[in-house]
Amino acid sequence: MKTKVALIGYGNVGCAVEQAIVAAEDMELAGIYHHDDDLDAIVADVVVLCTPTREVPDFAVKMLSKGISTVDSFDIHGQIYDLRQRLMPQAQNNHAVSIIAAGWDPGSDSVVRALLLALAPKGITYTNFGPGRSMGHTVAVKAIKGVKNALSMTIPLGTGIHRRMVYVELEDNADFSTVEKAILQDDYFAHDETHVMQVDSVDTLNNVAHGVNLIRQGVSGNTHNQQFEFNMSINNPALTGQVLVACARAAHRLQQEKRYGAYTMIEIPPIYLLDGEEEQLIRSLV
Amino acid sequence: MKTKVALIGYGNVGCAVEQAIVAAEDMELAGIYHHDDDLDAIVADVVVLCTPTREVPDFAVKMLSKGISTVDSFDIHGQIYDLRQRLMPQAQNNHAVSIIAAGWDPGSDSVVRALLLALAPKGITYTNFGPGRSMGHTVAVKAIKGVKNALSMTIPLGTGIHRRMVYVELEDNADFSTVEKAILQDDYFAHDETHVMQVDSVDTLNNVAHGVNLIRQGVSGNTHNQQFEFNMSINNPALTGQVLVACARAAHRLQQEKRYGAYTMIEIPPIYLLDGEEEQLIRSLV
Repeated sequence: MKTKVALIGYGNVGCAVEQAIVAAEDMELAGIYHHDDDLDAIVADVVVLCTPTREVPDFAVKMLSKGISTVDSFDIHGQIYDLRQRLMPQAQNNHAVSIIAAGWDPGSDSVVRALLLALAPKGITYTNFGPGRSMGHTVAVKAIKGVKNALSMTIPLGTGIHRRMVYVELEDNADFSTVEKAILQDDYFAHDETHVMQVDSVDTLNNVAHGVNLIRQGVSGNTHNQQFEFNMSINNPALTGQVLVACARAAHRLQQEKRYGAYTMIEIPPIYLLDGEEEQLIRSLV
Repeated sequence: MKTKVALIGYGNVGCAVEQAIVAAEDMELAGIYHHDDDLDAIVADVVVLCTPTREVPDFAVKMLSKGISTVDSFDIHGQIYDLRQRLMPQAQNNHAVSIIAAGWDPGSDSVVRALLLALAPKGITYTNFGPGRSMGHTVAVKAIKGVKNALSMTIPLGTGIHRRMVYVELEDNADFSTVEKAILQDDYFAHDETHVMQVDSVDTLNNVAHGVNLIRQGVSGNTHNQQFEFNMSINNPALTGQVLVACARAAHRLQQEKRYGAYTMIEIPPIYLLDGEEEQLIRSLV
């Protein structure tokens, strides 16, 4: 029987989630809902939350309270553990599963970082992003008063240091320096070198390509100079949508196994992300 | 309380396992045993099997029958699923856990392959090895009659195709062409381009460096041209030993959770491989 997956929110990521569900032979689309729809109408095994990140916690609580498992790509790194702790009793008490922070970073990159820490417990990992548009940062800028449209580009400076290049198209009568100050004080930008520029049209700059260069140099046992590198060059919403759908599969399986609760991706067996027979997957991948 | 980890076999990998146990703050070494020791003397939570790969299944059954969890780096890819099925009831019936094929390939590379399949369900993955010494292949050559010492080097030819360069030092009176024929017919070599060369001294050629270049190009949802790459440049036995010790930690945890059975690495939550508090690991990695 196919897993019924619905989604809430239909922006770039919601659209990519729809495509990934349609491409998955073990799933069927159980509906696309908008932020203000009547959520009581949802009948699904799993709901993928494609809302702005800051609306994720409330939607997750709502769905879990109905016993429906959720997946999200909540991406404020400093608050992920707190969200997990908030959703844990909601999921457990309602016999559901919530997989949070399920994108590529946080998400699949987190799995790579965990694996590399296991391979070389001492050492330093650097995650270098971009150049590419950050969806989370872009949405954060768009939420600022006076901003009509925005684009936040992430530029890797090496050793995990990044520059934020923020392009804003303003509402009539908006004051650029007020907007700039609000951006620079936002949690998303407060810790990085950030440049804000006013442009006439953000649309002409837009491009959803992104990249990662994740490096670890460390020690296995007492042997130094162990070198690891993970690179991606990807369409950002397409990958985020695909990871969300893979995690919807994992959430459904964990729920069927009665392993209720809230999980990050490093807490899930990688095989749970995959469609296919266990024997065939193990024979082909291991 | 520290996890008590013993090991059987004390070659390159056994030595590296010892070093990784000593370096792990949550573990203590519970003894080093040789193939012909009295295994009834072992008192440990987990035993790491560092024997030649073909001796692994019997040692695993022996330890599991005593209720002691095992970890091994069994590396004959075509037989891993069968080993899992053989050890599954042994582990379940004796309330123990066995993690098999726990090295870097099979092992951590398998986890990367599983993750990349989740990120781009359609596409092709190529795993390119080397240049470097293959321990499994070298041990297989050493087991052949007439071989005094051997070295099998893996040379990447791209798109997952490899050349095997086999250097053999023969016993007195051994016939080179008989040895060469035995090597070429061995399961380890029958599927690859293999060159066998007789040398006076294998010791002067030895070097345990190795490498991997794992590539996937695929489709997320319906978006093509998603590019992924994983590279390693490592000391081979040191990494194998470290992975085995990380999996010993995971085996112990799974046993404590009463999730008895036999597992490959793609069936284990990555966080189980790591020492440390759950909250701190999630906050720093996700």
